[in-house]
Amino acid sequence: MKNVSIIGGTGSIGTQTLDVIAANPDRFQLVSFAFGKNVEVASPWLNRLRPALVAVLDESVKMELETMLTYTPTIVVGEDGLIAVATAEEADIVITAVVGAVGLRPTLAAIEAGKSIGLANKETLVTAGHLVMKKAREKGVVILPVDSEHAAIFQCLNGERREDVRQIILTASGGSFRDQTREELANVTVEQALNHPNWSMGAKITIDSATMMNKGFEVIEAHWLFDVSYEEIDVVIHRESIIHSMVEFNDGAVMAQLGMPDMREPIQYALTYPSRLEIQGGERLNLKQIGRLNFAEASFDRYPLLRLAFEAGRAGGSMPSVLNAANEQAVDRFLKGEISFLEIEASVEAALQAHEKVEDPSLEQILEADRWARAFVASLSLAN
Amino acid sequence: MKNVSIIGGTGSIGTQTLDVIAANPDRFQLVSFAFGKNVEVASPWLNRLRPALVAVLDESVKMELETMLTYTPTIVVGEDGLIAVATAEEADIVITAVVGAVGLRPTLAAIEAGKSIGLANKETLVTAGHLVMKKAREKGVVILPVDSEHAAIFQCLNGERREDVRQIILTASGGSFRDQTREELANVTVEQALNHPNWSMGAKITIDSATMMNKGFEVIEAHWLFDVSYEEIDVVIHRESIIHSMVEFNDGAVMAQLGMPDMREPIQYALTYPSRLEIQGGERLNLKQIGRLNFAEASFDRYPLLRLAFEAGRAGGSMPSVLNAANEQAVDRFLKGEISFLEIEASVEAALQAHEKVEDPSLEQILEADRWARAFVASLSLAN
Repeated sequence: MKNVSIIGGTGSIGTQTLDVIAANPDRFQLVSFAFGKNVEVASPWLNRLRPALVAVLDESVKMELETMLTYTPTIVVGEDGLIAVATAEEADIVITAVVGAVGLRPTLAAIEAGKSIGLANKETLVTAGHLVMKKAREKGVVILPVDSEHAAIFQCLNGERREDVRQIILTASGGSFRDQTREELANVTVEQALNHPNWSMGAKITIDSATMMNKGFEVIEAHWLFDVSYEEIDVVIHRESIIHSMVEFNDGAVMAQLGMPDMREPIQYALTYPSRLEIQGGERLNLKQIGRLNFAEASFDRYPLLRLAFEAGRAGGSMPSVLNAANEQAVDRFLKGEISFLEIEASVEAALQAHEKVEDPSLEQILEADRWARAFVASLSLAN
Repeated sequence: MKNVSIIGGTGSIGTQTLDVIAANPDRFQLVSFAFGKNVEVASPWLNRLRPALVAVLDESVKMELETMLTYTPTIVVGEDGLIAVATAEEADIVITAVVGAVGLRPTLAAIEAGKSIGLANKETLVTAGHLVMKKAREKGVVILPVDSEHAAIFQCLNGERREDVRQIILTASGGSFRDQTREELANVTVEQALNHPNWSMGAKITIDSATMMNKGFEVIEAHWLFDVSYEEIDVVIHRESIIHSMVEFNDGAVMAQLGMPDMREPIQYALTYPSRLEIQGGERLNLKQIGRLNFAEASFDRYPLLRLAFEAGRAGGSMPSVLNAANEQAVDRFLKGEISFLEIEASVEAALQAHEKVEDPSLEQILEADRWARAFVASLSLAN
């Protein structure tokens, strides 16, 4: 029996983690659970899986939740509550599915407490990779990536030695606009941008997929997770998203992990590693039926945010935090209709240019760079 | 330093093994070497790598070889010589690259002597899988497959558990005639059949690739090597031969090994396992350049020898020996112009139907079934 804690439990990754736990009651037990305010999604799961410890955003959410529960867990609130859930004594593994910089402190606290981490929070490694990986090494904690690309790479590295790795190859679907030229992107609508060809995801990540910012974040995450330099990371466009990512070794062999798009696979793998487990209702890959897999270059000219991610990653320090926060603010402005699609890129580039890099930033300095970048992008007036 | 013995040293696999050894003198040493009679190929390699023990076909080859050597190894002859090379005390690993049933006894002797095996001899597992794997288990000997498909599967299984394997997926180029219908095959010439699209190999294996007999043998080998039932083995046509084979796991994840066609990769992997090593002049896989990978069903109607291989494998006993020997004789007759391309299949099917299966055959019974099948096919008069 593996005891699981989830922080960020009502989002897409959180609820799919709950699916996996509920489907395997003999293997997994939910011991603690944190979410913000979505009590409609949370309460049926809580009543079903009955974790002893629950964290919510604030006292008003707590009061609302109490009226909806058929059992009586300990309910805690705020960031302290989040950290309590992340460090719950019974937990063997913490799935960090919370979105945004709010995931940083609880993830670091969970590592400090020696928990295995199923990492779905991008910001953790993008903005604080230097702090997180250092602590993970100190504590001998395994970080299991809960996203299809890094889980694929993790699986490709099974039984291999770091020194034999020549290159990590991230695949990218190319996003909603992969068949459009840059010129055609000038006037795309929010609705068009939200129509991702392969995966059904939240709005923010769908936009990040269209701009390839998401792939850029994955490049930075791969750098930290797998201890590879940016020269050892490549991105290839693979429109079918069947090959989830690859690793090239020094003898020329390339290991790849393939599958149908199903986030339960990397989630469950993080929970079952080093073994595997059948997924109920999982669709099997049938290459004979699919017939063809396509590959193309991911051009920096076509996807400037991918270039900026490599640059911010190489520059290091507080630059990746600015990249992340500026992008988040810019996507928010795009979704609100304040700026155009291409101005997302322009906003991020402007923020990176204006930022004065802090070397080896502390958690507080990371959060400060984050706040600065948001304010900078929020106040940008663009030529639009 | 790893001490290597090669039996069947002057063929394609043998000489590429010598290439790998010669390219890495600090890692590998050739300690014993067996070949038949090709002294022109063997002597320069022997003078360069100077193994202390050499086996050749007979006394006349031995005398000829002695005049060509610049050093004085112990030279032994015949099957006893082959076995002496395969069991040489200094050898850590034996590469069994000899072609045909002559590989059986030395391979079993090498396993008995506790040597690791780099297995390139198809007949060993196709005809005597039950004897070989039993002895390998008894002796705790690792069998490292030296062909691109099984080496790929071996790598896909790295760090995984047998009970998590759902299916092994062998890829097949489809051979020289993959774009022809069965009707068009009736009058193909030997020259056409020898024109393989992806790999440059010997005549016999090129024909076996065109008929998919080779893939059928690989199915039987996979059954023994990886302890999977025939229901757990699938074959998919993949014309580019870039994905060398795959393993599907119970959670839906599919691991694949990819690379450019280069037999030095699986050869070297067998020598360096569990680590890897750069290959001098090895070509890197570039999927962006390749652009597309295609997949299609390998139909039993189109490739009857693939069906017969599954059937012979399932039937077991002496049937796979008959499959192998009947095919070898039939290909020989095709290459001599005695029978047509489609009569290769007809010959093999006739032999399998005429054969009285021996259950759990001894080595002698395997060799007897082999002799019987050859004689049967040699004397078949077909409607051609």
